[in-house]
Amino acid sequence: MTTSSLLTDHYELTMLSAALRDGTADRRCVFEVFARRLPTGRRYGVVAGTGRLPSLIADFRFSEEDVAFLTERGVVDRATARWLAGYRFSGDIDGYAEGELFFPGSPILTVSGTFAECVALETLVLSVLNHDSAIAAAAARMVTAARGRSVIEMGSRRTHEEAAVAAARAAYLAGFAFTSNLEAGRRYGIPTTGTAAHAFTLLHDSEQAAFASQVAALGKQTTLLVDTYDIAQGIRNAIAVAGSDLRAVRIDSGDLSVLASESRALLDSLGATDTQIIVSGDLDEYAIAALAAEPVDAYGAGTAVVVGSGAPTAGLVYKLVEVDGRPVVKRSEHKATVGGRKTAVRRHKPTGTATEEVVVSLGAPAPEPHDRLLQRAFLRDGVPVPDLPTLHDSREHLRQCLISIPWEGLKLSAGDPAVPVTMLGGSA
Amino acid sequence: MTTSSLLTDHYELTMLSAALRDGTADRRCVFEVFARRLPTGRRYGVVAGTGRLPSLIADFRFSEEDVAFLTERGVVDRATARWLAGYRFSGDIDGYAEGELFFPGSPILTVSGTFAECVALETLVLSVLNHDSAIAAAAARMVTAARGRSVIEMGSRRTHEEAAVAAARAAYLAGFAFTSNLEAGRRYGIPTTGTAAHAFTLLHDSEQAAFASQVAALGKQTTLLVDTYDIAQGIRNAIAVAGSDLRAVRIDSGDLSVLASESRALLDSLGATDTQIIVSGDLDEYAIAALAAEPVDAYGAGTAVVVGSGAPTAGLVYKLVEVDGRPVVKRSEHKATVGGRKTAVRRHKPTGTATEEVVVSLGAPAPEPHDRLLQRAFLRDGVPVPDLPTLHDSREHLRQCLISIPWEGLKLSAGDPAVPVTMLGGSA
Repeated sequence: MTTSSLLTDHYELTMLSAALRDGTADRRCVFEVFARRLPTGRRYGVVAGTGRLPSLIADFRFSEEDVAFLTERGVVDRATARWLAGYRFSGDIDGYAEGELFFPGSPILTVSGTFAECVALETLVLSVLNHDSAIAAAAARMVTAARGRSVIEMGSRRTHEEAAVAAARAAYLAGFAFTSNLEAGRRYGIPTTGTAAHAFTLLHDSEQAAFASQVAALGKQTTLLVDTYDIAQGIRNAIAVAGSDLRAVRIDSGDLSVLASESRALLDSLGATDTQIIVSGDLDEYAIAALAAEPVDAYGAGTAVVVGSGAPTAGLVYKLVEVDGRPVVKRSEHKATVGGRKTAVRRHKPTGTATEEVVVSLGAPAPEPHDRLLQRAFLRDGVPVPDLPTLHDSREHLRQCLISIPWEGLKLSAGDPAVPVTMLGGSA
Repeated sequence: MTTSSLLTDHYELTMLSAALRDGTADRRCVFEVFARRLPTGRRYGVVAGTGRLPSLIADFRFSEEDVAFLTERGVVDRATARWLAGYRFSGDIDGYAEGELFFPGSPILTVSGTFAECVALETLVLSVLNHDSAIAAAAARMVTAARGRSVIEMGSRRTHEEAAVAAARAAYLAGFAFTSNLEAGRRYGIPTTGTAAHAFTLLHDSEQAAFASQVAALGKQTTLLVDTYDIAQGIRNAIAVAGSDLRAVRIDSGDLSVLASESRALLDSLGATDTQIIVSGDLDEYAIAALAAEPVDAYGAGTAVVVGSGAPTAGLVYKLVEVDGRPVVKRSEHKATVGGRKTAVRRHKPTGTATEEVVVSLGAPAPEPHDRLLQRAFLRDGVPVPDLPTLHDSREHLRQCLISIPWEGLKLSAGDPAVPVTMLGGSA
């Protein structure tokens, strides 16, 4: 997909027009991305999307066609049009690594440059981070609930066609094993999987014929979907066709906890003791957790993961916090914010358990043993820094971060943020 | 954006491989898109996305690069790869017009052709319809709640960057007056609007300086955001700078019902009796309804609309209902479905109020006066039919449909579907 500079809110360009005209466009600014709160009851957020952002920002340009549209529609005047035609972000971006946890107030991204070049990025930055972080947080809870069993992302059909690709990426980042989305496989190298839907069985003259065809095409290392008609008969048909070395059966409907036990017993009685059971069908983190004691080998998660399981957006905002070195902050009620560029560390016990996140405005926290600095460089002078983490690096980073938080932080029930944030200094 | 044939689930291509090998790939099939239920408590669904689909499907092709990826990854064998390289949907698509209402069981899209050509479209069709229909339904409720006042879509920052463009389209379809999303303006001709964020005020040395700059750049027919510091002072500054013929002020935080009244009184006392009040900040349909008695002129809706206000996906499924003229249906528990191609009409009282939707499998309802046939052609032999409705047509169609349902159907509270669906005949 090509980046479009018009994935932007109208007001960014009207602000830009006015600022170019009054001379404030070149003031040095710092914008910060943070969440005022986590979704209700959530104990952590997961930073996701920072792996997609650097190239999107480096490629953010207004084409001749873009500028012509904006001028014809009267969105910008001629001077602004000329400025946009030469747009190239030349500032710096720092932030939390992808896969890092965040809490209310964590300064997860810091964008520095002129007002003009930074303000134009608000929508793109927030769209990417709000979407991907919401999916990753929901997916991480499902992975925790699955207790080491594989989880497969199969939700593409329930979300926007391009959001589906980003959702597959965010779920993989969070520890999912596979996605059904082929474009996510191509674009990000994520392992893809899939075998058959009920339609394939219905297409054939009998369930046995469908199974025989699938095994002929894909071999016995496939998964047969056994719940189109009667599940017990479906399992018998599957083993009759494929033999006891069939890799897996999938059940997509019904009371999965009862069906998993019954199916395991039936498979075992047929000698198919190594044939795995994959369950799917409206699974969210709670449904997955409820199946922990059942003989399930893998979970397919669809709708719940791609819509963030009750929290479809991460609530991240992009706020101006510094102008020409002076901290600034909105003062009206209910939206208390600390101005100034922040430095953030996470403190840990000697055992490695995180105890606190300390965020300091216009300075840095006094170092303590077991501190971990949370911010890193993403772009310098508009150019992505070398050796940014890969998706696999970020996946491992999240895994380590989730090990480091207090155990209560992994509970699915509603609770406070797993790690408290202490905000120090610098209020404007 | 270019269509990608890889916006597809892996299992569609494994089914295709197996069907090509066993000779069932050319069986004539009918797939149907419908919802088993509406989101909890919702009284109607809104069909959206059918305006985007015809060209996406007509352009759905597997490029050389796509096919190479699928072959290298072992997703498909060589015979399937050759077949995909020549893929072009050559079947028919019929369905409910965009902007039409739907209820549980409404056959909103019917895809007919060979199994092979139809199965490959499942993910694309569902992604587009599930996303756009979810947004349109939430947006329609907000438009109803706004009782004739304008609603502006400004949620791009809270959803995936490309989903934001489709969301702006769906909200406009549902009656929103404007969007903030510039790409939606370019791609779909939707009116865009926007003026300034808090950052613009913070950038300047004073609120007055910011307002003066904005008015100098955009004129007095602009909206000044007055809640960066103190709202009453912000309004005084706005009128001092722009005069009493300022078009509007915007308030984005605080108790909007109190603030709207106070702001109206203050504006009036300053002689700015025609200056409008626009409110925004976490508005959903309930918050909009709660402001009905307040002196508000327009609403800005962000997060709630782009995430479907509690129902981020429409729950639509794509099911095989007919093979070579024979109705087929999945038989396992909890997912009762009627097989066979359906014909749907909505029945009305002589006054025009809808009373019932009648859906008949393998036949057509006996005609009654005031029936309206709900399905129309979208593609014939893979080609979009001429004169498909424009977005403006669809917007007007939805407006008429909402007038036609019983008044209870427009209530925001949880309730049954506004129009009952009677399903007749043809169960396999």
